[in-house]
Amino acid sequence: MLIVLQSDATPEAIANIEGRIRELGFTPHSIEGAGRTAIGITGNKGPVDPGHFRLLPGVADCIPVTAPYKLVSREVKRDDTVIDVGGVQIGGKPIVVMAGPCSVENENQILTAARGVAEAGASMLRGGAFKPRTSPYEFQGLRFEGLELLAKARAETGLKVITEAKDTATLARVAETSDIVQIGARNMQNFSLLEAVGDLRKPVMLKRGNAATIKELLMAAEYIVSRGNKQVMLCERGIRTIETMTRNTLDLNAIPMLKMRSHLPVIVDPSHGIGIRNAVGPMARAAIAAGADGLIIEVHPDPDRALSDGMQSLTLPGFAQVMKELSAIAAAMGRSIHSLVK
Amino acid sequence: MLIVLQSDATPEAIANIEGRIRELGFTPHSIEGAGRTAIGITGNKGPVDPGHFRLLPGVADCIPVTAPYKLVSREVKRDDTVIDVGGVQIGGKPIVVMAGPCSVENENQILTAARGVAEAGASMLRGGAFKPRTSPYEFQGLRFEGLELLAKARAETGLKVITEAKDTATLARVAETSDIVQIGARNMQNFSLLEAVGDLRKPVMLKRGNAATIKELLMAAEYIVSRGNKQVMLCERGIRTIETMTRNTLDLNAIPMLKMRSHLPVIVDPSHGIGIRNAVGPMARAAIAAGADGLIIEVHPDPDRALSDGMQSLTLPGFAQVMKELSAIAAAMGRSIHSLVK
Amino acid sequence: MLIVLQSDATPEAIANIEGRIRELGFTPHSIEGAGRTAIGITGNKGPVDPGHFRLLPGVADCIPVTAPYKLVSREVKRDDTVIDVGGVQIGGKPIVVMAGPCSVENENQILTAARGVAEAGASMLRGGAFKPRTSPYEFQGLRFEGLELLAKARAETGLKVITEAKDTATLARVAETSDIVQIGARNMQNFSLLEAVGDLRKPVMLKRGNAATIKELLMAAEYIVSRGNKQVMLCERGIRTIETMTRNTLDLNAIPMLKMRSHLPVIVDPSHGIGIRNAVGPMARAAIAAGADGLIIEVHPDPDRALSDGMQSLTLPGFAQVMKELSAIAAAMGRSIHSLVK
Amino acid sequence: MLIVLQSDATPEAIANIEGRIRELGFTPHSIEGAGRTAIGITGNKGPVDPGHFRLLPGVADCIPVTAPYKLVSREVKRDDTVIDVGGVQIGGKPIVVMAGPCSVENENQILTAARGVAEAGASMLRGGAFKPRTSPYEFQGLRFEGLELLAKARAETGLKVITEAKDTATLARVAETSDIVQIGARNMQNFSLLEAVGDLRKPVMLKRGNAATIKELLMAAEYIVSRGNKQVMLCERGIRTIETMTRNTLDLNAIPMLKMRSHLPVIVDPSHGIGIRNAVGPMARAAIAAGADGLIIEVHPDPDRALSDGMQSLTLPGFAQVMKELSAIAAAMGRSIHSLVK
Repeated sequence: MLIVLQSDATPEAIANIEGRIRELGFTPHSIEGAGRTAIGITGNKGPVDPGHFRLLPGVADCIPVTAPYKLVSREVKRDDTVIDVGGVQIGGKPIVVMAGPCSVENENQILTAARGVAEAGASMLRGGAFKPRTSPYEFQGLRFEGLELLAKARAETGLKVITEAKDTATLARVAETSDIVQIGARNMQNFSLLEAVGDLRKPVMLKRGNAATIKELLMAAEYIVSRGNKQVMLCERGIRTIETMTRNTLDLNAIPMLKMRSHLPVIVDPSHGIGIRNAVGPMARAAIAAGADGLIIEVHPDPDRALSDGMQSLTLPGFAQVMKELSAIAAAMGRSIHSLVK
Repeated sequence: MLIVLQSDATPEAIANIEGRIRELGFTPHSIEGAGRTAIGITGNKGPVDPGHFRLLPGVADCIPVTAPYKLVSREVKRDDTVIDVGGVQIGGKPIVVMAGPCSVENENQILTAARGVAEAGASMLRGGAFKPRTSPYEFQGLRFEGLELLAKARAETGLKVITEAKDTATLARVAETSDIVQIGARNMQNFSLLEAVGDLRKPVMLKRGNAATIKELLMAAEYIVSRGNKQVMLCERGIRTIETMTRNTLDLNAIPMLKMRSHLPVIVDPSHGIGIRNAVGPMARAAIAAGADGLIIEVHPDPDRALSDGMQSLTLPGFAQVMKELSAIAAAMGRSIHSLVK
Repeated sequence: MLIVLQSDATPEAIANIEGRIRELGFTPHSIEGAGRTAIGITGNKGPVDPGHFRLLPGVADCIPVTAPYKLVSREVKRDDTVIDVGGVQIGGKPIVVMAGPCSVENENQILTAARGVAEAGASMLRGGAFKPRTSPYEFQGLRFEGLELLAKARAETGLKVITEAKDTATLARVAETSDIVQIGARNMQNFSLLEAVGDLRKPVMLKRGNAATIKELLMAAEYIVSRGNKQVMLCERGIRTIETMTRNTLDLNAIPMLKMRSHLPVIVDPSHGIGIRNAVGPMARAAIAAGADGLIIEVHPDPDRALSDGMQSLTLPGFAQVMKELSAIAAAMGRSIHSLVK
Repeated sequence: MLIVLQSDATPEAIANIEGRIRELGFTPHSIEGAGRTAIGITGNKGPVDPGHFRLLPGVADCIPVTAPYKLVSREVKRDDTVIDVGGVQIGGKPIVVMAGPCSVENENQILTAARGVAEAGASMLRGGAFKPRTSPYEFQGLRFEGLELLAKARAETGLKVITEAKDTATLARVAETSDIVQIGARNMQNFSLLEAVGDLRKPVMLKRGNAATIKELLMAAEYIVSRGNKQVMLCERGIRTIETMTRNTLDLNAIPMLKMRSHLPVIVDPSHGIGIRNAVGPMARAAIAAGADGLIIEVHPDPDRALSDGMQSLTLPGFAQVMKELSAIAAAMGRSIHSLVK
């Protein structure tokens, strides 16, 4: 912690600040700048709350020196975390593609989607059973019936399943069925839910909130890991910016930043990220080129009749085409697309 | 719903779009622009999902015509909603001030704060018992003990109490103690929690998410009201913008916009909004001048030693001074500050 | 300048950093934190470029200690700057209201507007002669003819005139006619233009860019003042945020922040800020309550037929009503609205 | 243009709106929605100003139907524009890499940089001679001497040159020396400068403003093209968002969106975009994978001693390594990196 002093801080004010530091059991340490002086704090075991100092007379600013996340950081663990999802490795060299519809709508739709994405080379099936929607009047998902249909699709195709847990009340049932529990963007700072998934021993994909910083995403992951669940993957899915032509601004900058700072795998959701079907392929390719470990892509057998997000869903033939392009980019990166077929 | 056509849409594409509209049971209605043509849709009872049309050949854009919220809108109810909180009216002419510390820390702190803010003219006591925090390593609140201390402070001072419900698991206990249940900014789109408070018959203060639009705030309120709980007040507390000098950008523009569109009372939180003690007074005055129905202000008997948010908390004498200034502005607006003392 | 070290910085890396500091003629100064060490730099006369250090091995971050603006800061000059515009004082106790149409359209329009706003109590006439427009196909202003019409309106009404200088080519002519030269939001970082107005000895109103931080606004003002022109007023006119219901997000938080940091007068433009006629009055009142020294408001004799920005312009009777409300708020603040009539 | 009516618009209000439409020489055209009615406008030759209608009684909203840019749009010209810069084609299959230091600092620096980037496979040399800087106290560039040094580096290496024109006063001299005139992000809406480069017959690279939408970038390009200069390339260089870990948020989403809407070539600047040396390579690869036609990358022979932007500049060996990775990605896209050596 560094306390920056106002240029006109009096000797009394400085003495008072130093006294307060000592009172808290720490050691003040003076340092002089061009126009002002700062005081460093040493002897603290954990982070020091800036609130102790910010409003003392003579204080201009308080700057923390230590990063606020630990367990998810590369400083604590240098090697990449590789998560095993029933035999599918996420975070290693092969890139994992999760695909399927926004919402599970009915048996025919989800089975058709599952067969199609498996054939095109996906390893996992996505599909929402519990859907958080901005309006109370929109379709909220098939709920438990949706979970059963996902299990059925898994049994038939061999795809692993990822679906969202919307609240603590339904989490256990979701965790029972799903191979990966997804925490949605709106729940990234639902700390009660984060603690509950932290108590599971099950892979979790944590989506970045639409106005969350990269640091806050890492802090939210720290909530989960600090409860003992180390199988966390981070998902970039777009942030809200001044741009209105795209649904969100998919922030691919987050990929190298997360990979530098954290050992956790990074997944990218280009479908929600840009929200426009014809642009999903280019953004998926770009995500792999930037170093992502996986993709989650919306695919629907008949997107124009989808109950949600049809505008951003690929058709099955469209997805097959995108997968070919992704294979080429993955190869150029010295990686490959993970395949269920050996 | 209006479907805007591409300038080169073929007659076949247009016929196909019109067929699709009829297939859904609606009526297409052609309208020509300077360079392109649009098709209106009529005959629909509720909102039409744009996903049905956005990706059909020839379609450039789909524009909904009807506002997506209803029960909270002024179109449905013209008169201001006035909420009675144990005799304190919110949404009427008198302006209600809620004040107190960010977190309940101990009995002495909360009682001292309560006595001080009551004396200075506040009608309600705020204080967090359950604290959502960005880091798992920060102080998370006194929880149930905090609720008891709030009840004790109410018994002694006569102030009404407002505190945050963080999750569905603890909601019932919070609702039992608190006169107003606060839903925090991070939970504005925690739909399971919104539904649960919608099932209560208790006043609720819903805070705007830090990247939520005014429309999304109204939609979140619609979740609550559509379950039957009509006692909802909306709280502007700052959004995240490109500005970094202030903690958030308190969006006072939301006040006239919400008052024009909705009949619900509007409360403003200048403390979280700007996050800097010396600027809380000016922003509180501005909120009243812009038409707010109430304020929620952080006040701490010893803010430099506060466990959270000390930097933005007023001292008790500072709050008393702000209250005087607020009275003058309220009078200039033809209103007054609600007082517990008759 | 403070250099924060990585937690695993080697002694060699630290020695290298310290060597580099000495090489530049400064003095390194070690300081220890909880998990890492930092090095302060002293002996520098001006700001040190962080680029010298950011990428040396072992460096985690570089944090400047001194504020980058000087001449506009309160640290350099404690007393409020009061600017005399032909007898109208800006920055003192009386609040100055500038009003008029977005664009000068014709003689009848500008004279009618000028008479109307003068009668309602404004001291200055605004009106664009040179209009920067997003599209090349929109109305670009009457240019030199517009300047002449403004001069005519001044001669008749006694109002002072403020109008925008769009580029260096037309600056001299604008400065000749106008009592205050306005630099528009899009030109806030047009440094060649800032230097040119810095060479004038004429009052300047500098508008905040729509994505500029408060600090950048102060830096842009520093450009002008550092050339010798001290008659600068700062204008908050809204920033671009995630909110789309309002034209911009008028950032009233900037008022107390600017007044704390700078001695320059602060003017607020609620018309461009919120962009909706019925909300201009509430935001104007709020600006005064937050401490603004002046307002610039769009008023048009027939806004529904205005060539630009009619949607946000007040009618003349609407403006007269707003002025009454502003007087009441100004009085509650212990101030008044400046009046041309003695 | 579509005028959306309030749900309670009276027949008189509707008749008045329709009368106003006819008065302007257009034809009103009624269309009914679920809860409200809208009126379309036909018969207009160009865009209709919404200001004519927005504030009439009964009007809820006005929605333009036609896109505001024309000459730069794919609707007007389907084929990609390919710009010839002295034999280097931009916008065709080969991808063009421009590289060099942020600022020209001295002869040795620019020549060393030029030789290094040419050897690694760049086709163009970048280097700022006129530098717009946020602070008046920062290095502003070598100006005319910088132009001469760029010409010297071109003569020696055969690289084409791109450098920024900061204002109309120096534009002619920049255009004389430089093969491409760069318009910087801060000048994207400096319309006087846009008009001046529109009058040139010289390739222009227009950078997106840091808070400009994709549509505004296209509108700014329309300014140039509408003056007759068709040799415009668009440059994505990052926008300002809520993220603070990166210098800007490089918005790669802009690549597919611009390519869909416009025929102009798209260049990406990953150096300013993310602002962190180690992340420039990943973002450059991603840009190519998303479909960019070229890259502009900061490279400095000794970045730790650079006078500006050293933190984001690649070293010469770092750049050579990035070029190898880019070649692999380009090949995976069925493209190549343009090479000066035949």
